Amino acid sequence: MTKYTEMTREQLIAVQAELQKRYDGYKSMGLKLDMSRGKPSKEQLDLSMDLLGETDYIEDGIDLRNYGILDGIPSCKKLFADLLGVEPKNILIGPNASLSLMFDYIAQCYSHGVLGSAPWSKLPEVKFICPVPGYDRHFTILEYFGIKMINVDMTPDGPDMDAIEELVKDESVKGMFCVPKYSNPQGITYTDEVVRRIAALKPAAEDFRVIWDNAYIIHEIYEEGDELLNIFDVLPEYGNDDMVIEVCSTSKMTFPGAGISALAASDANIADILKRLNAQTISYDKMNQHRHVEFFGDVNGIKEHMKKHAALMKPKFEMVLRHLEGELGGRGIASWIEPRGGYFISLDVMEGCAKRAGELCKEAGVVLTNVGATYPYGVDPKNSNIRIAPSLPPVSELDFAAQILCVSVKLACIEALLK
Amino acid sequence: MTKYTEMTREQLIAVQAELQKRYDGYKSMGLKLDMSRGKPSKEQLDLSMDLLGETDYIEDGIDLRNYGILDGIPSCKKLFADLLGVEPKNILIGPNASLSLMFDYIAQCYSHGVLGSAPWSKLPEVKFICPVPGYDRHFTILEYFGIKMINVDMTPDGPDMDAIEELVKDESVKGMFCVPKYSNPQGITYTDEVVRRIAALKPAAEDFRVIWDNAYIIHEIYEEGDELLNIFDVLPEYGNDDMVIEVCSTSKMTFPGAGISALAASDANIADILKRLNAQTISYDKMNQHRHVEFFGDVNGIKEHMKKHAALMKPKFEMVLRHLEGELGGRGIASWIEPRGGYFISLDVMEGCAKRAGELCKEAGVVLTNVGATYPYGVDPKNSNIRIAPSLPPVSELDFAAQILCVSVKLACIEALLK
Repeated sequence: MTKYTEMTREQLIAVQAELQKRYDGYKSMGLKLDMSRGKPSKEQLDLSMDLLGETDYIEDGIDLRNYGILDGIPSCKKLFADLLGVEPKNILIGPNASLSLMFDYIAQCYSHGVLGSAPWSKLPEVKFICPVPGYDRHFTILEYFGIKMINVDMTPDGPDMDAIEELVKDESVKGMFCVPKYSNPQGITYTDEVVRRIAALKPAAEDFRVIWDNAYIIHEIYEEGDELLNIFDVLPEYGNDDMVIEVCSTSKMTFPGAGISALAASDANIADILKRLNAQTISYDKMNQHRHVEFFGDVNGIKEHMKKHAALMKPKFEMVLRHLEGELGGRGIASWIEPRGGYFISLDVMEGCAKRAGELCKEAGVVLTNVGATYPYGVDPKNSNIRIAPSLPPVSELDFAAQILCVSVKLACIEALLK
Repeated sequence: MTKYTEMTREQLIAVQAELQKRYDGYKSMGLKLDMSRGKPSKEQLDLSMDLLGETDYIEDGIDLRNYGILDGIPSCKKLFADLLGVEPKNILIGPNASLSLMFDYIAQCYSHGVLGSAPWSKLPEVKFICPVPGYDRHFTILEYFGIKMINVDMTPDGPDMDAIEELVKDESVKGMFCVPKYSNPQGITYTDEVVRRIAALKPAAEDFRVIWDNAYIIHEIYEEGDELLNIFDVLPEYGNDDMVIEVCSTSKMTFPGAGISALAASDANIADILKRLNAQTISYDKMNQHRHVEFFGDVNGIKEHMKKHAALMKPKFEMVLRHLEGELGGRGIASWIEPRGGYFISLDVMEGCAKRAGELCKEAGVVLTNVGATYPYGVDPKNSNIRIAPSLPPVSELDFAAQILCVSVKLACIEALLK
């Protein structure tokens, strides 16, 4: 197979004509396909309807329908402690979205500082490290608080640790957002070495915080999932017990928007957060916490449940990957990683071509995540990264959507090569 | 009846001896009664169990189990718009607690200012007006953000408006918390004139905000409830459309902690809040919103439901009021207001005696709201106000609790008079 990058002008024009015909064919179908957000499919949502069954909402004699219990009901703290590999005392059960846990934590750092440090609002500049490509909603939080984002490239092992170890020497660098397992969007799981190097960081800022967004903690696609080293197991070796705030949620286990979230942190951080929570709420939704405990039973129950999700996700990932391989493989215009879990496939196309490919997709009825959204400030400096979210459309639609994506990428790259 | 304040020393000592006997009798019963927080009783919680019935969680073809819809589902916005007397576009449906809506709004003012004004965190001093006695959790929010609280006395018509009109001439006075209907703890509903004077305020600070916590909007005890003038109807007359942020919740209609909250505000304020929400969450719990809409149907459904609460609350309020009247009436040592709704009875005892009365109650097994909690910084300057929350205990227990409270108040006052 000849790479596009090695074709003559004439060859490219011939390929272009053929692709254009296919593209016009798809376009005429008037499709409306959405691969923009990591939304579970209807079939995935149906998996959790038993969650809503009847129960008495009593635990240890306490009526969970009433006020109180700020940090979460004990059975639910236990469930998440087991899932995250920490003690129940180091768990807080949160609202319906871990995003709020993260936003509220950064808001707290902004207004009150970290364990007695100066509030970030009082500092001339606050910077955060952002592994890229990454999750747009992390960047939105940082942008909201005027925190300067510094891109650090991802490698197949995790973020570029050499770069990070340099950056943390700057005292105004106050933290880093990570999705350590099945990273959004690349699906990379940080290696043990990367986790250790993060745990061993010696930041100049005492109030440096790693936001460990373990959104895909148990979201495997295949029987054998990736193993992520539990960072809380190694932090004490480096005297960094207080450096990490971990969050996760059941948004992609049960119901997005009607699930529960959890936060794991050191004793000191938990106490710090509870001080704020005591002013912010009386309790989160304990009835929903109870329903989740009744539904899952224990961590094994979560594992079994997630296998049902995997069975629905696997054919979708495989469908997209098959098209990527068949249509883009060996053309010298695109690369991607085959993830073993999570919600996304990250596609890197020829530099300068991602936005145009996205436009072409849109014109043919396929909505992708906004190109650029995987980078801070919405700016992909190479205009190269495309995030594919295959979970929502049925497999049959995904078949078309993936083909349209591939044709669009090829057309965009040929356009650029012909310029 | 001779007032305690007009008794001779000998008379007081005789009364004291008799009361002490009664008190010791109660104490020996080893009771454990809680009148500290406005918690609904089990019977009240049982009223809403049908809320958890089965439904399809589809609205206008949208699967409410999935991500999305930041401002609340349309049917729920309509329900609260009707309840609050505003347009649905001026409603946001919030998380499980209106407390979080208020905390998050103040946090937003702190970090980002109000409609483009300077963030409050950047100002040398920010002050808030606090009608007293008031709701301790309002004060906790203000204290958390280092906002200086200024006490303004409540009158039978609402807060002292002469004082407020003076205070708002100070540009550093940025707002005021109000519970305008069945105020916490006195159960006072602001008169139309007070509501109008608030709506007509001309604060020096452009970013002055009234947090209108309509927590007891429809929480009548008797057939005929108090009528509160809708402040949003009159704000435009004074060009103050943006001055008020109203909140309410179903915490005391359905389930505390598992209900939903709503916020009403001008177009400009809604847009301002949505900017923050867009970074803070993907949506609140739409499944719970849907359940509430299905359960209530419309505003009339809420009204009918609240009558069932009233039927449970009325005998409790009457029980406490009967004891107050019988034991404390005409002794010159206490005064109170008979509320027509809400969750509390506010008792003002002889200056300097509230804390001691609270201690005596506690020793006899009756927990009251911490004396002082109804004032900013937990300091009741007159040490006189006691908040009684009669909703939680069964009527039979309340009978004892109210008697113990009355005896404790009398003993505390006699102690003071004998000093």
